[in-house]
Amino acid sequence: MKIAFIGTGIMGLPMAKNLQAAGYDIVLSDHFSAPPVELVTRGAMVCHSPKQATETADVVILMVPNTPQVEDVLFGANGVEEGLAATSDKLVIDMSSISPIATKSFAKRIKESGAHYLDAPVSGGEVGAINATLSIMVGGDQEAFDRARPIFEKLGKNITLVGDSGAGQTCKVANQIIVALNIEAVSEALVFASKAGADPARVRQALLGGFANSKILEVHGERMVEGTFDPGFKIALHQKDLNLALTGAKELEVALPNTENAQILFGECAKLGGENWDHSALVKAIEARSNHSIRND
Amino acid sequence: MKIAFIGTGIMGLPMAKNLQAAGYDIVLSDHFSAPPVELVTRGAMVCHSPKQATETADVVILMVPNTPQVEDVLFGANGVEEGLAATSDKLVIDMSSISPIATKSFAKRIKESGAHYLDAPVSGGEVGAINATLSIMVGGDQEAFDRARPIFEKLGKNITLVGDSGAGQTCKVANQIIVALNIEAVSEALVFASKAGADPARVRQALLGGFANSKILEVHGERMVEGTFDPGFKIALHQKDLNLALTGAKELEVALPNTENAQILFGECAKLGGENWDHSALVKAIEARSNHSIRND
Repeated sequence: MKIAFIGTGIMGLPMAKNLQAAGYDIVLSDHFSAPPVELVTRGAMVCHSPKQATETADVVILMVPNTPQVEDVLFGANGVEEGLAATSDKLVIDMSSISPIATKSFAKRIKESGAHYLDAPVSGGEVGAINATLSIMVGGDQEAFDRARPIFEKLGKNITLVGDSGAGQTCKVANQIIVALNIEAVSEALVFASKAGADPARVRQALLGGFANSKILEVHGERMVEGTFDPGFKIALHQKDLNLALTGAKELEVALPNTENAQILFGECAKLGGENWDHSALVKAIEARSNHSIRND
Repeated sequence: MKIAFIGTGIMGLPMAKNLQAAGYDIVLSDHFSAPPVELVTRGAMVCHSPKQATETADVVILMVPNTPQVEDVLFGANGVEEGLAATSDKLVIDMSSISPIATKSFAKRIKESGAHYLDAPVSGGEVGAINATLSIMVGGDQEAFDRARPIFEKLGKNITLVGDSGAGQTCKVANQIIVALNIEAVSEALVFASKAGADPARVRQALLGGFANSKILEVHGERMVEGTFDPGFKIALHQKDLNLALTGAKELEVALPNTENAQILFGECAKLGGENWDHSALVKAIEARSNHSIRND
């Protein structure tokens, strides 16, 4: 089976490598940049546009930065849609993290061209992409999901059909809301405890066994205590994700009071020069407001 | 060894029973209310004041509702302090959840009477008290902690000396901040996802495997989806705990922007009649603001 893979960056490259290693024929496009040598030397075919790659392949996977890039690859000149026109039964899977609302209209247009469409954003970061342990949150119909499942199983572990088109992206936004707010929660708790005179490392240790425990307390709480703020996941990317949450919430009339605060705090980190810090560095914004650092720095 | 146990309510009674079952001689006081029959029939001695109980016992444990009650038991007429006056080397352990700042002065006064003092609040609720699986967060010196450890081991599992006097209470406040904010985070995420058209139960399921995972997503997220809001832990009690956080933060000049929001949201639940709902019902405040329920109710 031939899989066109559009977007071979930090996430896309290791994902494409895993699919190639699993025996899929990978089809690339050099319309945006030269395709990765390591995929080409192992036999990947190189086309010159998403249209041509789509015509060549059975399945098209997108892994690009944001909504405008997905729109351009799908519906721009020489885009995926044009490659579908003469054919049928192809499967388009957008694994980027983009707007759930835009996704619904993208899915509708692709289906009108006779193809199937899944939104399937991931969480787990570069490490999850390399180790094929991504969580994959899928929106679309059961038939398309069943067809894509063998592909997903080469990329990740926790694979869930959440609902109809857009539900995968909605779930990813929900994921990013919780991750940001759990980071914010640990930040408030550790700054409070430290300024009250307690050792934040011991507080974190004491909290790991109870109801305050979370993946964020384990991983990001340790980064805060140690002061290791190399990404990881960049604040600038989390700002993009919370922007999807907040613009979506405005349209849907949903109250996200603490997500609004978290976005303000990420903005304060950016003003401190921290756009490329790991998102656990949100603690620095709480520290700055409290005139107190939890570390000896 | 004789342990005076002051405060045998929902938490204190099962804790005293576990200590009695482990072979400790339990000493009670009937100054506030008649002591539990089940402890007395198994041999607990009944005194008529905290003073008298303190004179009789080697160790005094307090498990009462809030700061004023601890102050009254320790320093009121016929209180613990009066029972210490003629003696020495007794150990006073406050396992209530109260103000970290008041705790520091309570510890100082008790130590001036020649006794040792530990603050040792717990988390894990009534179930943890019954099953002796409480988390115990301790403030005080190492010598007193070592002496108390065999007692703590009959009550809980995750036992941590966090720091000096007050550090246990500070840690408990940090715990309650994180628990409230993680509940708030799951509330925002599920209301967003549900109003965007995704099934909140499936969204929760998809998020359990990744960085959004937490004890709160597991336990309280399920309560939100199912609509089971019988306590558990009452909103009114969590309001008390966040009040400790917010008054402490004001004094310490620590920024707790999302804890402030969570307290407002608990207040909105209370206005809806929910003071005695489980704290996971905070989701109802986000639902009310968003004019959308995540359940078919």
